[in-house]
Amino acid sequence: MGSLEAAADSTTRGTFKAPLPNPSLQVTAEHTLKLVEAPVYLPGPAEVLVHIKTTGICGSDVHFWKRGRIGSLTVEGDCILGHEAAGVVVKCGEGVTDLKPGENLTQTGAIGDRVAVEPGVPCGKCFLCLDGRYNLCKDVQFAGVYPYDGTLQRYKVHPATWLHKRINPTFSPRLPDNVSFAEGALLEPLSVVLQGLRIAQLNLGRGAVVCGAGPIGLIALAAARASGAHPLVITDVEPKRLEFARQFVSSCLTYRVDPAQGPEEVAAEIRRLFGTREYEAPPTVLECTGAESSICTAAFTVRRGGTIVVIGTGKPTINNLPFMHLSLAEIELKFINRYNDTWPAGIACLSGGLLDLKGLVSHVFPLERALEGLVLASDPGQGSIKVHIVDDRETITF
Amino acid sequence: MGSLEAAADSTTRGTFKAPLPNPSLQVTAEHTLKLVEAPVYLPGPAEVLVHIKTTGICGSDVHFWKRGRIGSLTVEGDCILGHEAAGVVVKCGEGVTDLKPGENLTQTGAIGDRVAVEPGVPCGKCFLCLDGRYNLCKDVQFAGVYPYDGTLQRYKVHPATWLHKRINPTFSPRLPDNVSFAEGALLEPLSVVLQGLRIAQLNLGRGAVVCGAGPIGLIALAAARASGAHPLVITDVEPKRLEFARQFVSSCLTYRVDPAQGPEEVAAEIRRLFGTREYEAPPTVLECTGAESSICTAAFTVRRGGTIVVIGTGKPTINNLPFMHLSLAEIELKFINRYNDTWPAGIACLSGGLLDLKGLVSHVFPLERALEGLVLASDPGQGSIKVHIVDDRETITF
Amino acid sequence: MGSLEAAADSTTRGTFKAPLPNPSLQVTAEHTLKLVEAPVYLPGPAEVLVHIKTTGICGSDVHFWKRGRIGSLTVEGDCILGHEAAGVVVKCGEGVTDLKPGENLTQTGAIGDRVAVEPGVPCGKCFLCLDGRYNLCKDVQFAGVYPYDGTLQRYKVHPATWLHKRINPTFSPRLPDNVSFAEGALLEPLSVVLQGLRIAQLNLGRGAVVCGAGPIGLIALAAARASGAHPLVITDVEPKRLEFARQFVSSCLTYRVDPAQGPEEVAAEIRRLFGTREYEAPPTVLECTGAESSICTAAFTVRRGGTIVVIGTGKPTINNLPFMHLSLAEIELKFINRYNDTWPAGIACLSGGLLDLKGLVSHVFPLERALEGLVLASDPGQGSIKVHIVDDRETITF
Amino acid sequence: MGSLEAAADSTTRGTFKAPLPNPSLQVTAEHTLKLVEAPVYLPGPAEVLVHIKTTGICGSDVHFWKRGRIGSLTVEGDCILGHEAAGVVVKCGEGVTDLKPGENLTQTGAIGDRVAVEPGVPCGKCFLCLDGRYNLCKDVQFAGVYPYDGTLQRYKVHPATWLHKRINPTFSPRLPDNVSFAEGALLEPLSVVLQGLRIAQLNLGRGAVVCGAGPIGLIALAAARASGAHPLVITDVEPKRLEFARQFVSSCLTYRVDPAQGPEEVAAEIRRLFGTREYEAPPTVLECTGAESSICTAAFTVRRGGTIVVIGTGKPTINNLPFMHLSLAEIELKFINRYNDTWPAGIACLSGGLLDLKGLVSHVFPLERALEGLVLASDPGQGSIKVHIVDDRETITF
Repeated sequence: MGSLEAAADSTTRGTFKAPLPNPSLQVTAEHTLKLVEAPVYLPGPAEVLVHIKTTGICGSDVHFWKRGRIGSLTVEGDCILGHEAAGVVVKCGEGVTDLKPGENLTQTGAIGDRVAVEPGVPCGKCFLCLDGRYNLCKDVQFAGVYPYDGTLQRYKVHPATWLHKRINPTFSPRLPDNVSFAEGALLEPLSVVLQGLRIAQLNLGRGAVVCGAGPIGLIALAAARASGAHPLVITDVEPKRLEFARQFVSSCLTYRVDPAQGPEEVAAEIRRLFGTREYEAPPTVLECTGAESSICTAAFTVRRGGTIVVIGTGKPTINNLPFMHLSLAEIELKFINRYNDTWPAGIACLSGGLLDLKGLVSHVFPLERALEGLVLASDPGQGSIKVHIVDDRETITF
Repeated sequence: MGSLEAAADSTTRGTFKAPLPNPSLQVTAEHTLKLVEAPVYLPGPAEVLVHIKTTGICGSDVHFWKRGRIGSLTVEGDCILGHEAAGVVVKCGEGVTDLKPGENLTQTGAIGDRVAVEPGVPCGKCFLCLDGRYNLCKDVQFAGVYPYDGTLQRYKVHPATWLHKRINPTFSPRLPDNVSFAEGALLEPLSVVLQGLRIAQLNLGRGAVVCGAGPIGLIALAAARASGAHPLVITDVEPKRLEFARQFVSSCLTYRVDPAQGPEEVAAEIRRLFGTREYEAPPTVLECTGAESSICTAAFTVRRGGTIVVIGTGKPTINNLPFMHLSLAEIELKFINRYNDTWPAGIACLSGGLLDLKGLVSHVFPLERALEGLVLASDPGQGSIKVHIVDDRETITF
Repeated sequence: MGSLEAAADSTTRGTFKAPLPNPSLQVTAEHTLKLVEAPVYLPGPAEVLVHIKTTGICGSDVHFWKRGRIGSLTVEGDCILGHEAAGVVVKCGEGVTDLKPGENLTQTGAIGDRVAVEPGVPCGKCFLCLDGRYNLCKDVQFAGVYPYDGTLQRYKVHPATWLHKRINPTFSPRLPDNVSFAEGALLEPLSVVLQGLRIAQLNLGRGAVVCGAGPIGLIALAAARASGAHPLVITDVEPKRLEFARQFVSSCLTYRVDPAQGPEEVAAEIRRLFGTREYEAPPTVLECTGAESSICTAAFTVRRGGTIVVIGTGKPTINNLPFMHLSLAEIELKFINRYNDTWPAGIACLSGGLLDLKGLVSHVFPLERALEGLVLASDPGQGSIKVHIVDDRETITF
Repeated sequence: MGSLEAAADSTTRGTFKAPLPNPSLQVTAEHTLKLVEAPVYLPGPAEVLVHIKTTGICGSDVHFWKRGRIGSLTVEGDCILGHEAAGVVVKCGEGVTDLKPGENLTQTGAIGDRVAVEPGVPCGKCFLCLDGRYNLCKDVQFAGVYPYDGTLQRYKVHPATWLHKRINPTFSPRLPDNVSFAEGALLEPLSVVLQGLRIAQLNLGRGAVVCGAGPIGLIALAAARASGAHPLVITDVEPKRLEFARQFVSSCLTYRVDPAQGPEEVAAEIRRLFGTREYEAPPTVLECTGAESSICTAAFTVRRGGTIVVIGTGKPTINNLPFMHLSLAEIELKFINRYNDTWPAGIACLSGGLLDLKGLVSHVFPLERALEGLVLASDPGQGSIKVHIVDDRETITF
């Protein structure tokens, strides 16, 4: 079985018997899920064994299960899913000095440093890594993307550099005690949004539109508001999601997209929420659906000279993109792929009270029922927002 | 007497007898102040006569009085002071269609469109104006800067383009009814801050330091917080000002600068508030004092690769700037001069509830006692923050 | 008949009898061309009457003739074509001080200031104009775009601000004497390229691809080279155009696109010219064709984290854009619409010897045979690059 | 004795007897120089032993000798100087696959891969390294900066990642065969300039000033020209240096600074070379002297809204900086510290013929007479530009 750890040193990695079992939720090449016991690995040099306490389910987990692939990433064998996670340090490999297991640092019952997992492990050597764009590294080993095991298990080995507390001496501030495991796991989707906001360059008192009121869109909404964007409009086709958005960020305006209308028509109505003049049209659109109709609508919604940041993607290609309009209006179309250097800012947002994302967790399942959680998350009729898989078993040091 | 209007068309401008007297606070070339009756001018084409309801006193007003100059700007004759202002439209010149006098649009007693004054009138023709940097126009006619009369009078003529309600068909959104005259007058110092923030490019969840807890520093503090900067530290030598800052923006940290300490020493202590590691040092410093010691401290405070935005300036030159350190740390030093295209964003901030600046107004004087207000504002011992001169006389259309 | 001048002051503009006839090439709403005498207007305040000496034919002129529209711009009546022009000042309206007719300033036979025409006249009042993005002004009056008359006539009135010699006291440096009328007329397509390069941010010693070896692509090639881009590859489907490119910019590499191949395949081969490794892939692609296949190829050609600048556009919408790939590779897609503040830089390029574009003029016709020139330019089989319409009649001051 | 290699793994590194002696030029804590035999080390994992063929002398080498320090960098013991170097691969450590010794790949007599040395070895772990700004790494081990040995010796061990041919699989393109060792050694000062140009963002056809006609200033001049800057002015106090500049870049203008004149006066005269109007003033100044008077002059020379890039630094602090003017003109002051990701672009510049820097090498000494070379370089009266220390001994593989 492929594993992040195995790949990391390309030698046979040692396993051992942990004090608790290690149930894991795996996807197979045959598009099935299974909840099975997985081996527990020893942390190698610069690595850490983490007791995963919470993992959030992402649309991509469902996608890997149902479709077996996302773009060029294909499920060719068994692979533990999960990449939105937080946990407790259980055991440190050689050379890890800044993370510690076995000390009762918090009142929350954890008996080791509490960490949030940054799931991608870039190569560190390619020009993109050396250039600070490690999110674009072609050799990244990403938790939950075959053949690298994810966090939907109790015990996971991960490099200390990519565990955010204060593992890396200079890179990561502490995961403060007032940030819960649930919030720690929400740092991953928040990171996606922060990556988008970094290139969106919102300005205080300038308007923005968020397309899509799914988990990423909702976080984008809250983060745009916390960045000073105003007025702020969120769109979706589903009234219930918009209602949630209104409760989540009370100062936002919502717009229900009628799929029967064309992009120009919808865009004109969205613009009207900002005012009747070109100047009032929003300079920024954060596209969080990946749907062709939404992208085309964004093109007609954004102000002349404005910017569209594509945060969500769907199909490999899109049609009907209004290129002539994009040209005449000198619109910038920017894209993001995951994130780089976002966990510290995310932790500051949550611990500093700039963002309160806890309300996004609509359903919680224990690790042993992770499969049920994934099934629920995959069913649009259930109206889930963010499903969390948690492990309440006490962390035992060994 | 020099006047903005006279200069604008270099012809003799018509005056007329207004229904109310027009008391004005003037500075003279002899460094004296006088409160005298001033002529009321007729608005020319594209101009508007405004009943000024509120003007804030700025440090530069005091400076022109006491020193007779700021940089190359010198008081060579009588000049009405004041440039932070809001008021009511009384009469429109030819071609003004978007501003209206004489309609009771609001419940606040105003009987005409309520407008905030953008005090600088750029030439509109030089390369800087054509390039969108009209704040750098060398031929700008700035209210309250000799020979252009300011807003410390009841009746002031100003181009409609630079009155922000919805005068300019596309440029300026309405000054909403929930923004008071006091807030309207605060849009000018807020604009200074917005100009600084635009180039500071704060990011959500990233730290910042504001140097100086005067009016500009306090607004910068609130605006940085509203832009998502965190953690946020404000510094000053005066404990009372820091105490005010803590009440004004409750989540900020404050640091009292001991003038006896050197910049490196002070910087090290400010950095400690962010954490002990280089990474945690603030990537942005907003320098709002103009004091040499503060600027040098900022250089040692900001993170390697960080940015210092100089929002306030004091003396013509500074000494002891740590150039070698700025080089080794690749720090960017950016400066602003006033503002361009900031009123609409400022109005959105105030009307959208992103900023509440009303608490900055520490003293209020009626127009007839404007001189007292300026004297009080000039006395550091009085502890004033922002002194407002207001005119409660009912606006009479004529 | 609609005219730029008429629209400019919305009053009946005076005409007069010029010493020479004023033949003009007009397009009609019925998709026909006609070479007819046009009235000569008097320059109003701040305007100048120019004797047009050279006008280049642009693809858009052909498009207006054959299709009657480009995007939302439609030919609804007779309109004089032409917008790439240079000429001689014949008569100045009131208030024009920096341009002079009737003085023999040069040895080239011209008897008035030689000027290059910036064809768009923006409103100067909208937020886009005030923000320095006058190229995006929705109320722009563009020479040769109905209802605004163009430069394919002998006598054209144009605002002094948009005539580049040193008309605008600060905006425009002189059109130096060593820049010919032909080069003056080439400043317009060069401006399109300069607008693209400004946002492309090429870096010295970094590679670039230019898609399309038409006039814009060839200028982009030369300008990219003059900006230090290296290695530099230009692509086209037509071998003859690539051969011309090799002679025009000797250090470039050329790649012939086989239309039968798919974008990914073509992109892989273009990349191979830069080297075999991801790092060597070009960080910038300048797309100058507007063709869907070329745009999709650009997406796969550019380096991860790179930028595509779309300089040419074709159809209103495009299909098959590889959105997922653009996301995963964090590619920026930027667009331009015409130009702002480019003439001075263009003049510096030509007069300073950074660019020699004269070789692009493949055919020259006298004004009286302008129609033949347009017909030739519209026939791809003729292999023309840039057709110039010139008027050798001596400029007569009146 | 401290050494880069020793520090790299903090274990005792193996030495061995090389087929040729290893003379080295060392600076001591007592401010003396000595040419002594140095040990030859074995390359460890990922390291390479290089036969250094050429090293350029930099002002900092002289500074370390004469003053014993630059900023916080102090010479506390014997240290081999030199950091501008190129050479031939002699022996590769474990895991180095892309560099090869002992193959006659070129016709130039070299019998191993020819490589240019990037002298700094960053930690690769701190947030600055992870963020792509490895030039700011506080734990960098820089060749020739105590305690890390430099390149003024025959045999030097260096990590393969920082040897530019095609060592790093993706980061570095080949050092092409048409780039000589002399040019290879010039890549280091060129890199300093490329770092400055990257943030200067020169635009084609826009003017620039280079302050200082020393080696860095001359390279900046050539590189600015190759980037399309025009007009281009270089300044210096020394007429001979300006004469050299005129020959080096024939299209530049030169201005001799009279030290008796004040910054404003000098700036006004430099501006006059660009034209008499504000618009024509240069938008960019590349400051390459580090002298206070030059920096202050730059502030008055650059256009309103322009940028000064400080490439050279001198004293720890500077006085008399015109802060008020920098504010009123909204000038950006940017600094660089060394370089990151510049060798590949530099190699492209030299191999692609965009830059010809060979003429800068005014003096050449054999390695055995390196001390004489340093003495000559340290004497301003000698008029040297760039002194190269070369080793013509044939490379012997072992």
